[in-house]
Amino acid sequence: MHTHTAPVRRTQVERCCWPSSLRLLTVCALIAGCSAADTDITLDAKATLNHRIQSLDLLVFVFLLALTVLTIWLFKHHRVSWLHETGLAVIYGLIVGAIIRYAGTNTTLVHMQVEPQGIPTYNAKLPPDTLWFKYPVNQTNATKLPEGVKTYAYVFRGQVYDIEENEIDLKATFDPEVFFNIILPPIIFYAGYSLKKKYFFRNLGAILTFAIVGTTLSAFLIGGVMYGCVKLMPNYLSSSFTFLDTLYFGALISPTDPLTILAIFHDLHVDVNLYALVFGESVLNDAVAIVLSGAIQNYGEHYSNTGEFETTAFLRSLSDFFCIFFLSLLIGAVMGCFTALLTKFTRVRDFPLLESALFVLMSYSTFLLAEATELTGVVAVLFCGICQAHYTYNNLSEDSRQRTKQIFELLNFLAENFIFSYIGVSMFTFPKHHFDAGFIITAFICAALGRAVNVYPLSWLLNIKRKPKISSNFQHMLFFAGLRGAMSFALAIRNTVSDARQTMLTATSLIVIFTVIIQGGAANFFLNWLKIPVGVDDETEQLNNYQVHSVYNSMDNSHSAPDVEGGGGGRGKTRLSSGADSNLDTPLDGNAATATIAAGGRRRNSHEKAILARIWGNFDTKYMKPLLTHSRPTLLETLPVCCNPIARLLTTTQQLTQDGSEFRRVDSDSDICIDNDTGNGLSQDGLGVGRRNSINRMEILEHVQSPVSTRIRLLGFYGKKL
Amino acid sequence: MHTHTAPVRRTQVERCCWPSSLRLLTVCALIAGCSAADTDITLDAKATLNHRIQSLDLLVFVFLLALTVLTIWLFKHHRVSWLHETGLAVIYGLIVGAIIRYAGTNTTLVHMQVEPQGIPTYNAKLPPDTLWFKYPVNQTNATKLPEGVKTYAYVFRGQVYDIEENEIDLKATFDPEVFFNIILPPIIFYAGYSLKKKYFFRNLGAILTFAIVGTTLSAFLIGGVMYGCVKLMPNYLSSSFTFLDTLYFGALISPTDPLTILAIFHDLHVDVNLYALVFGESVLNDAVAIVLSGAIQNYGEHYSNTGEFETTAFLRSLSDFFCIFFLSLLIGAVMGCFTALLTKFTRVRDFPLLESALFVLMSYSTFLLAEATELTGVVAVLFCGICQAHYTYNNLSEDSRQRTKQIFELLNFLAENFIFSYIGVSMFTFPKHHFDAGFIITAFICAALGRAVNVYPLSWLLNIKRKPKISSNFQHMLFFAGLRGAMSFALAIRNTVSDARQTMLTATSLIVIFTVIIQGGAANFFLNWLKIPVGVDDETEQLNNYQVHSVYNSMDNSHSAPDVEGGGGGRGKTRLSSGADSNLDTPLDGNAATATIAAGGRRRNSHEKAILARIWGNFDTKYMKPLLTHSRPTLLETLPVCCNPIARLLTTTQQLTQDGSEFRRVDSDSDICIDNDTGNGLSQDGLGVGRRNSINRMEILEHVQSPVSTRIRLLGFYGKKL
Repeated sequence: MHTHTAPVRRTQVERCCWPSSLRLLTVCALIAGCSAADTDITLDAKATLNHRIQSLDLLVFVFLLALTVLTIWLFKHHRVSWLHETGLAVIYGLIVGAIIRYAGTNTTLVHMQVEPQGIPTYNAKLPPDTLWFKYPVNQTNATKLPEGVKTYAYVFRGQVYDIEENEIDLKATFDPEVFFNIILPPIIFYAGYSLKKKYFFRNLGAILTFAIVGTTLSAFLIGGVMYGCVKLMPNYLSSSFTFLDTLYFGALISPTDPLTILAIFHDLHVDVNLYALVFGESVLNDAVAIVLSGAIQNYGEHYSNTGEFETTAFLRSLSDFFCIFFLSLLIGAVMGCFTALLTKFTRVRDFPLLESALFVLMSYSTFLLAEATELTGVVAVLFCGICQAHYTYNNLSEDSRQRTKQIFELLNFLAENFIFSYIGVSMFTFPKHHFDAGFIITAFICAALGRAVNVYPLSWLLNIKRKPKISSNFQHMLFFAGLRGAMSFALAIRNTVSDARQTMLTATSLIVIFTVIIQGGAANFFLNWLKIPVGVDDETEQLNNYQVHSVYNSMDNSHSAPDVEGGGGGRGKTRLSSGADSNLDTPLDGNAATATIAAGGRRRNSHEKAILARIWGNFDTKYMKPLLTHSRPTLLETLPVCCNPIARLLTTTQQLTQDGSEFRRVDSDSDICIDNDTGNGLSQDGLGVGRRNSINRMEILEHVQSPVSTRIRLLGFYGKKL
Repeated sequence: MHTHTAPVRRTQVERCCWPSSLRLLTVCALIAGCSAADTDITLDAKATLNHRIQSLDLLVFVFLLALTVLTIWLFKHHRVSWLHETGLAVIYGLIVGAIIRYAGTNTTLVHMQVEPQGIPTYNAKLPPDTLWFKYPVNQTNATKLPEGVKTYAYVFRGQVYDIEENEIDLKATFDPEVFFNIILPPIIFYAGYSLKKKYFFRNLGAILTFAIVGTTLSAFLIGGVMYGCVKLMPNYLSSSFTFLDTLYFGALISPTDPLTILAIFHDLHVDVNLYALVFGESVLNDAVAIVLSGAIQNYGEHYSNTGEFETTAFLRSLSDFFCIFFLSLLIGAVMGCFTALLTKFTRVRDFPLLESALFVLMSYSTFLLAEATELTGVVAVLFCGICQAHYTYNNLSEDSRQRTKQIFELLNFLAENFIFSYIGVSMFTFPKHHFDAGFIITAFICAALGRAVNVYPLSWLLNIKRKPKISSNFQHMLFFAGLRGAMSFALAIRNTVSDARQTMLTATSLIVIFTVIIQGGAANFFLNWLKIPVGVDDETEQLNNYQVHSVYNSMDNSHSAPDVEGGGGGRGKTRLSSGADSNLDTPLDGNAATATIAAGGRRRNSHEKAILARIWGNFDTKYMKPLLTHSRPTLLETLPVCCNPIARLLTTTQQLTQDGSEFRRVDSDSDICIDNDTGNGLSQDGLGVGRRNSINRMEILEHVQSPVSTRIRLLGFYGKKL
């Protein structure tokens, strides 16, 4: 708990390393100048100085970010492709870190050994929360205390492990929990919120395999190999590393970072399935890694007494892992759905500002709720983000959609660049780095090995049943896309108590820096070299791989086929007309819904591999969407007749009374679903006509700066329809 | 500096009061359950628990805010006008605070008196930064330390003034500096960013008088009267209050809060001049109050030894006040202009995300820069916000304009509601309240008195020269609009060391709660009662008070008069045609610029009171806007011929090559300036035709959700022109 007893000035925001000469000089000047002054004033001045230094610390980072932004613009402007924005942030961070390191000297903190006053009575197992320390001051001012003695409060900070190191540590770093509580949540939430659900669900099996099985496999493999290697090393390392340490290293180095690669993929319009694989995997494996590393930590601290393998402890850790992961997932999903219900059944959308505020607050409370119940907030916000995008987004007003997307996009951008800058800066200024060439080289090799084990065997396994095989080019690209990033670094810096952990942090930092700069820079070249198609449109991809059908496709065949005859430019009109009477949200007409789902489900036996996606899709279309959004069919149509009263209660008038006059609004309700609808229509007729209409309008809003063209086009169609 | 030595989990975000039974119970259960376990594990568990409790604290606030948002919607939906959103937030805060207070019991923190080990050597005037405390633990686990003793680090917190009170304080409050570093900056920045500049500059004289003279006057009056009253009180209060204390109270209770009143004004479309007066004054008096209170604090701590009046100390404080205020203003303005230059001379607008990020980073760095140089960050961001709106906004892309406005609107909304909720909650949970009925009643009376002294005499003074007098109705409304809010509370809670300060905090909290709920609720009624015109359009106002002319009007007479003959619907066309060849940004044709300015400046002697605004307006139009935005006339036209090379360098090709084909972009560059142009045109012809065109497009974007109508209209006009 932070308190404020004296009129000292402190800031609560994150702070960074700034052991500069400036600080030393000013403190000295200050103390020297005040030699005759009161202790109070000196203390106050010192507090003010601290506040100034902290502001300066942050200012350096903010300027660094602004500089990065300007340079990114310059690079984009001149189409420089060999260095990407995250790489740039890291490089700038390294430069600034080096300047701070070599330009600065360290201030020494004054510390004092104390012992209890009088006879100590230790009535608790815990050390006291605060120490009260009487300090004699030579005061020039009259105060109430007669003896010239003041009592100062000191609050508990932590255990001192190493007398020499702790000194530097106490002043030069900022709390790594800032990453987990402030920096990572918006990044992860935005990843969930901006997920392209259609391709994500289409590749769900592969993504889950890579993310859950692959990451775990990779973690254990890296842990094992590293342990073997470390034990072979002749130096002190072999004694300081336990198997748990190397396993923890395996867990933290396994998750891949999507940022750099995906930015490149996005710019080049790489094949959407590859995009979905890389994105989906890297988003989920962050979640897996954080829970996995937590379980390993718990195993070491709570369950195991010896540090060696114990079956019961292992099983408890395993159940921990699954419980925490799925409960976090559940909290995230429930909060997402709750927000959807709130936005569906209230008319808060009439006030977009309130609506956006509600959206942000509910998303943030998901994180806090998970943290308050000892689950993993980062995992919860990820799934909350997915649910918000899948359901709540459909209920939001146009204004809130844009606003929430833009806000989280900006937050994500700032947070990302901050963390990469910090990785660079901390390489020089973090006092607990521990360089060991042997360990670092082994770590690099193991990281690559772990990625290979994740990609190749699992791809082979998936290809047995998967229809559009993951080609070897794609596999190589998946391997190459295994950049390490924010999550690895955050996990590594979270715990730097022991030598082993410090060595791990150094290796992790170097791996992150290397992969982000070198692999990120070479990604463009590698894409060319592997002849991976770029400049692929969503629809082109669909035409090429039209064998790949999600539940939405198979479900829609009976329905959308007749529409297609219109062909050509009429495609847009057809969509709108079907939207006007049966609602655009789902490809199913009200009455035919159940029958079609059942029939569609069985029609194509060749696509059984998408069974997970199909079951979920059915359930989603029949129950979740009607319940949580304004989409058709309503629950009145999908639930058994006996449930009609409840169903009526859960169906809004808006859902029932959708007709032509409400088209505009309905249309904007169902951006995401339209996409599915139209996409498969196109894959049916195989002509690619009316392609423009099927581009998700969300994307249009992102890419084309003025939405006016879309509007006019829509109005035109609407007019045609009328 | 926050560090992380042990694997404890802490969060850096703000935390609140939660002295609930839950905490006590869980701590007890935890300690009891772990009686056989290791101290390490117990400590770790305690740290985890702390993290959970902090998450829970925040969660309570987030839920409270979500609830407030939903209730606001409900109230707006049902058009409830007797309770406003800030009032609602306060009431919910009070309820939750009461629940926490009476449902919870306090945990006792364990603290221990310590003394230095061995012979103490006090080589510095300052107490040590950290204490190292050896604590014997009965460990079941083998560790490296042989004696079963662990060393824990304790960091300096502050002086202990009162043994009993400090105990509760250390855990139950959160750092008041959070208000100044996290909550207030976005509120103040948004105030500057959303200022309606036209009416602000038009009423600049009155606003400055009210804000600077009025606030200072009010502060000294309240300080004096309170001091007299307090000295008359028979109890201990008279001894604990110094004149500086009451003066500080005067300074903190003088600033008024714009939120509630302005929200009502905005909903009802109250007369824009009244709106500008209230808004402008309350924004500026926040800035004045924070600097003034800082100067008073400094006077007490540094300059004065006796606490009584000393001339030199007073003069030093006075110069402090002016230096800090104007240097902060300067930093804010310079950073705003620097951002404008960055956005003008780079093409970063091609990437709206980068542009928005740059905008946010530069604005935040203004705050940090001011804080790092011991100035007032809040004042700096206010003027930075004004400059950003006045210059940078014109250079931004359409996307960034919306994004930045929406982001700061949302941040402002959340911060506002958080602070008002916290005021409510803290009324019950903050441990340092000190109720004294006499003081509170006196404070209420003095607050009203101070407001009256601010409004009535100054209005009388202003009315001597002012042409459209501030009517007595308006004066009453100005008096009534003197709600106290966030700034008063933040200043009061910043320092609660002494009894006097605690009494002041309690009085301030009550005044804020009372004025926000009662005055805010009655504002509607009061407006009716005073017969203040509502539902007033920008233009209607102009027609009524068309004698009121800003610099823009007087400057524009010669130029816009001929255009008006077109009359009727032709107004829009005229604007566009003049815009197409001479640019819409200013009402001045390139060549005629200097002459017109000179002539316009002297034409209307009856408007001499706007001299400040006029001088500034001239300078702004001739030099600042051409330099910082893409507007015409360019510097080539306004600077002397000898400066042509420099002027050419500072003029973008875009500025020079503006013609019809670039109309759309140019138009969006100059939203703000168009407003000035058209507004006075209308006041000239006095017909109010073409009124729709003169509605600021920014406002259209805010009010009408889809900008399509504007676009189409504009395109229509453009077509006409062609």
